[in-house]
Amino acid sequence: MSKSTFAIIAAVSAGAGAAATAAMYNLRSDKKPEITTTTVVTATTTKPATSPAAPVPSSQVFSQTSSAVPAAPGATTTALAAQGLVDPSGLFEYGFPGPVSDVATRPALVSSFDRRLRNPQWVVEHITPASLAMRDGDRKHSVFVEDPLVPEKFRAKLKDYFRSGYDRGHQVPAADAKWSQSAMNDTFFLTNMCPQVGEGFNRDYWAHFEDFCRRLTQRYPSVRIVTGPLYLPRRDPADNKWYVKYEMIGNPPNVAVPTHFYKVIFAEDGTVGGKVALGAFVLPNAPIPNEKPITDFEVPVEAVERASGLEFATKLPVQRRKRLCADTTCALVIREYADRQKAFGKPDQGRLSPPRGNN
Amino acid sequence: MSKSTFAIIAAVSAGAGAAATAAMYNLRSDKKPEITTTTVVTATTTKPATSPAAPVPSSQVFSQTSSAVPAAPGATTTALAAQGLVDPSGLFEYGFPGPVSDVATRPALVSSFDRRLRNPQWVVEHITPASLAMRDGDRKHSVFVEDPLVPEKFRAKLKDYFRSGYDRGHQVPAADAKWSQSAMNDTFFLTNMCPQVGEGFNRDYWAHFEDFCRRLTQRYPSVRIVTGPLYLPRRDPADNKWYVKYEMIGNPPNVAVPTHFYKVIFAEDGTVGGKVALGAFVLPNAPIPNEKPITDFEVPVEAVERASGLEFATKLPVQRRKRLCADTTCALVIREYADRQKAFGKPDQGRLSPPRGNN
Repeated sequence: MSKSTFAIIAAVSAGAGAAATAAMYNLRSDKKPEITTTTVVTATTTKPATSPAAPVPSSQVFSQTSSAVPAAPGATTTALAAQGLVDPSGLFEYGFPGPVSDVATRPALVSSFDRRLRNPQWVVEHITPASLAMRDGDRKHSVFVEDPLVPEKFRAKLKDYFRSGYDRGHQVPAADAKWSQSAMNDTFFLTNMCPQVGEGFNRDYWAHFEDFCRRLTQRYPSVRIVTGPLYLPRRDPADNKWYVKYEMIGNPPNVAVPTHFYKVIFAEDGTVGGKVALGAFVLPNAPIPNEKPITDFEVPVEAVERASGLEFATKLPVQRRKRLCADTTCALVIREYADRQKAFGKPDQGRLSPPRGNN
Repeated sequence: MSKSTFAIIAAVSAGAGAAATAAMYNLRSDKKPEITTTTVVTATTTKPATSPAAPVPSSQVFSQTSSAVPAAPGATTTALAAQGLVDPSGLFEYGFPGPVSDVATRPALVSSFDRRLRNPQWVVEHITPASLAMRDGDRKHSVFVEDPLVPEKFRAKLKDYFRSGYDRGHQVPAADAKWSQSAMNDTFFLTNMCPQVGEGFNRDYWAHFEDFCRRLTQRYPSVRIVTGPLYLPRRDPADNKWYVKYEMIGNPPNVAVPTHFYKVIFAEDGTVGGKVALGAFVLPNAPIPNEKPITDFEVPVEAVERASGLEFATKLPVQRRKRLCADTTCALVIREYADRQKAFGKPDQGRLSPPRGNN
């Protein structure tokens, strides 16, 4: 259990030597900490800001006092004296530790990035019959790009994916943002990617699932989808205990390979305050036979919430909710690549120029 | 790879049935989302608020527009039209997904809680010669408690630790908060705990390391310490790839067992704007021989930042920094429990009533 066997430590200790030291002792501004601020930075798509604002604390803050504790004689005085000497929050003078979620708001999507796992926590999109009907974007004109809105230290890199064996898997599919080239480009930031198994998953079953989501617009005039990674435990038969195990790609290891992916779908009826058909699905990051019904992967929204630590519909009243797969037929339409290309006349839906999941 | 092998899904699908459904369809307030708000709740130590304010979004928000993109003729019109139809941020009408970090500010510590892993991300404390000299708190009067400031769905539970084989390991040590019973009680919330290996680690080497931190107050008049868990990858010799693997305790599995723990230490000289001796340490959650020098576990602060996704001293100017282990001797003093109890006359430093790491 030497520390040198652990890559992240080793990388900084050895490989990054002088640079790490320089970064560690980097001169920073010495402003007073502001725990309650959220910074909004506006940048352009082609030239995003290279130096985003300093991370700001961003949390639900609870403050507790011990004033209601029944005090023994003298205890209050002691506590007050000690409180004058001890000030845990004073640490924030040196900067609030975070965690900061880098939220990128772009015309095609909103993404929230996990700096520890170097994957998004969620990416949100919105599709309509009209948006899918516009065909001004073509993925052969888009390129995968690192997201400069994430500080370099926490960024997922193109080289992490290179020869990793995993696809750069879109969370918001490129095919959902064909309404402009710029919108499609938005989907190619690595903050919209996770490492996905290519054959049998990203290029197959998962693609059919994305197609299912698009076809929902034939019935629902407005469909909102949240997509993201999960890291779920499995029981090891050897000792009957539960373990989470996932690969980290990159050298040094940098980006986590999720065990699963979720989609939470909000299919709206198009009226203000109208009904919303809710569906949640969790799929393993692994080859899935095309014959497998998508309903096998349907789960309660709360299951995704417990597994992700997120919450998805806290403000949606019960009387507005329906269950998606009770309201419509949840079934995939399997089209092989050749067929899909023929049907749409769009080579960018398949493996061609550039392939869907090239790495 | 059936979904039923994954506990979190299974637990909600099967065990929690009606309750899960009720929670899923719970009626919530339908207020307009406020992405930039932080909620501060004041509660008492003895009767903490049982219904914390609704989670609020809390992130560094970047906004991108495509206005600077050189537009082909007609492209701007198309993009604007589509933007009127597509509104990814509209999803937040149903609630912002988070992640929310539950930050608890208590007299003895400030903690930030990870709702996904059910562990703190960090816990901050402050010790001084005067605070350590006060002895009004005794751990035999403290009890481990679940933290009601964390929503039930995301809370670490006492039953998760029960018979898990792991100690409920304090991040801020109880022995650092003896200045009042109430302060010591603050350290017994499960938001200050992680599952730690008992024998050889929490009850031994880690305890000696905590003692080292306290002894720093003999040289530095003010010492601030950030403590938290890490989940680090190891290279598997079988395929030469890097994997993160950690156990989840509880039934259904609920709380992650960290692979490592870090401390980032800020030893201050007691003057405003004075020098700060910085030290960072990463220790495996495993038995460590007492003979092992603590300097074997010293790492650059940046190593902890890259591994945790956090940042610790962004606002501390370079000219104020010193390296702790260059400024003072970093070495543990190994005292066995019997000796320590004799030295301090305090049974609560050892394994007695209640034991340090009972579960």
